[in-house]
Amino acid sequence: MTATPTTLRRSRDIVTPALRAVLDRLDETSRAQARYHLGWTTPDGELAAVEGGKAVRPALALLSARAAGAPAEVGLPGAVAVELVHNFSLLHDDVMDGDTLRRHRRTVWAVWGVPSAILTGDALLALAQEVLLESGSPNAAAAGTLLATATRDLVRGQVQDLAFEQRTAVPLDECLDMVAGKTGALLSASASIGAVLAGAPAGTTAALATFGAQVGIAFQVVDDLLGIWGDPAVTGKPVYSDLRSRKKTLPMTYAASQPGAAGERLAAWLAGTDPVDEAALPEVAAMVEAAGGRDWATEEARRRMELAESALATVPMPDPPRDELVALGRFLVTREA
Amino acid sequence: MTATPTTLRRSRDIVTPALRAVLDRLDETSRAQARYHLGWTTPDGELAAVEGGKAVRPALALLSARAAGAPAEVGLPGAVAVELVHNFSLLHDDVMDGDTLRRHRRTVWAVWGVPSAILTGDALLALAQEVLLESGSPNAAAAGTLLATATRDLVRGQVQDLAFEQRTAVPLDECLDMVAGKTGALLSASASIGAVLAGAPAGTTAALATFGAQVGIAFQVVDDLLGIWGDPAVTGKPVYSDLRSRKKTLPMTYAASQPGAAGERLAAWLAGTDPVDEAALPEVAAMVEAAGGRDWATEEARRRMELAESALATVPMPDPPRDELVALGRFLVTREA
Repeated sequence: MTATPTTLRRSRDIVTPALRAVLDRLDETSRAQARYHLGWTTPDGELAAVEGGKAVRPALALLSARAAGAPAEVGLPGAVAVELVHNFSLLHDDVMDGDTLRRHRRTVWAVWGVPSAILTGDALLALAQEVLLESGSPNAAAAGTLLATATRDLVRGQVQDLAFEQRTAVPLDECLDMVAGKTGALLSASASIGAVLAGAPAGTTAALATFGAQVGIAFQVVDDLLGIWGDPAVTGKPVYSDLRSRKKTLPMTYAASQPGAAGERLAAWLAGTDPVDEAALPEVAAMVEAAGGRDWATEEARRRMELAESALATVPMPDPPRDELVALGRFLVTREA
Repeated sequence: MTATPTTLRRSRDIVTPALRAVLDRLDETSRAQARYHLGWTTPDGELAAVEGGKAVRPALALLSARAAGAPAEVGLPGAVAVELVHNFSLLHDDVMDGDTLRRHRRTVWAVWGVPSAILTGDALLALAQEVLLESGSPNAAAAGTLLATATRDLVRGQVQDLAFEQRTAVPLDECLDMVAGKTGALLSASASIGAVLAGAPAGTTAALATFGAQVGIAFQVVDDLLGIWGDPAVTGKPVYSDLRSRKKTLPMTYAASQPGAAGERLAAWLAGTDPVDEAALPEVAAMVEAAGGRDWATEEARRRMELAESALATVPMPDPPRDELVALGRFLVTREA
């Protein structure tokens, strides 16, 4: 297995200059906000020493071109495009969720206002298609269609997630469907867009898309586990953060739908409208565990990773990108756990 | 000249069913909001007897396919796409401007909240590219690139317009640049996207793009005139509405930059931070006129239409679409005046 940090670093070495170049096309205001959002600058435009994101999605896009037997560079327009769509969604989500901090820095809307965050997000979404379509690839339109449908699935997942906040109970299958949209869709597109640009056979792109989608769900399950039991020193979030907001996460949704005392008490707590009692949070976490939510989620993450890796095994591809894809998937779901 | 209402009605007859069909792909929530926004339904989803927009942009897209010698239907994916982008921008603009009413109906964010309007807008933007790229046209990627760059210009224009609100003075050329983005860019794309889909020569698509861009500026100049001197019974807006908000429109920007007493008094009034004195509005309107803003704008609209029509005259195209384009352009800039 190739070491994933190397995969990610090599990918950033290729993608970051391309991303910088396309951001130069934006108007000065949106460009400054996009650069700040990516961790490259301070709000005043000074160079920042902030560590940016891991840029997992672009790495998947480059690997998927190699999985189709093409050089990584064939996937580059796709890598830039998925990173732009990811950041479009973060900018808009921060507005919708009212989050003032992301990675310990103020969010774009918190610094420049809501209209700025909406417009910079809109510009990044348009730019994503532009970068892809002007690539001159004979498969650009197919890649653009993939990106557009993934964007719609991503938006649909966010629509569902927001609607869940107004509901007292959410069935597990609806929660899984939300996660497939909000987290799975863009990872699926990232893991297949390079192969689409490379003109890979439909079987290969479908297997890569399944890989990305299943890794996405596994990733979210793990994220949800960390949202309840994660170490604040590692996650950067307060302990029990998803409980404090009565969030309908996968382990919670599973546990609250189980028969028995713990599940029923949990469903009642989730449906409550009184302010969340801080002192009761350890007990709520214990109820999720007692109702089987922790075990189910741990097993579900494992099962989804198995589905992801099996999908890759069904199609021929060179060993190095296959190994790096598997390693990257495993890295994603074991981070910070 | 063919009668423009007939051009618009024929276009709607082709475009509306296609638009309805693609909106069916949206999740239930975004679909309901998009249908309401388009005037098709009430907030509860009942069929509405509301008159929708004129759908000028799709009509331009169909005409531009015919201008390239192709059947109108070749421009249909482009027509649907530009209408989707137009409505994406209206949904987001209403959030940013805090407008609670559009065409005498509550705006989507006012009915369903800001996150809904952001997400439904996002979904329409993604859907626009999807419709275009899946058309199977060998020119789909070129059309998608055109749409993406127009979207970015549109966003850039809105960024400038919002920034103008914080400034005490705006030079005329910056105001024209803002208008070229906010109003001109999508009309330019609309007037050329059908020809791009039809594989027209670069000279033809460039002439059509110039036509749309110049009509867009002429349209905005007329809109700005109506925002000061328009008849409320016709415009649906209160008299002096753009003065009440100290809006930096084209006639205002021109007038406030002129030497002489009227221009200087106007510049001082525009830079003021005290609440606008309702009783003084007729006098402010008179100052804009005295400084030459009304005459300049009237002449500028005429000049832009001349540029638009001259552009069309430079390239060969069948007479019927050329005549209908000219008539549609004139209709746009003489409406409600």
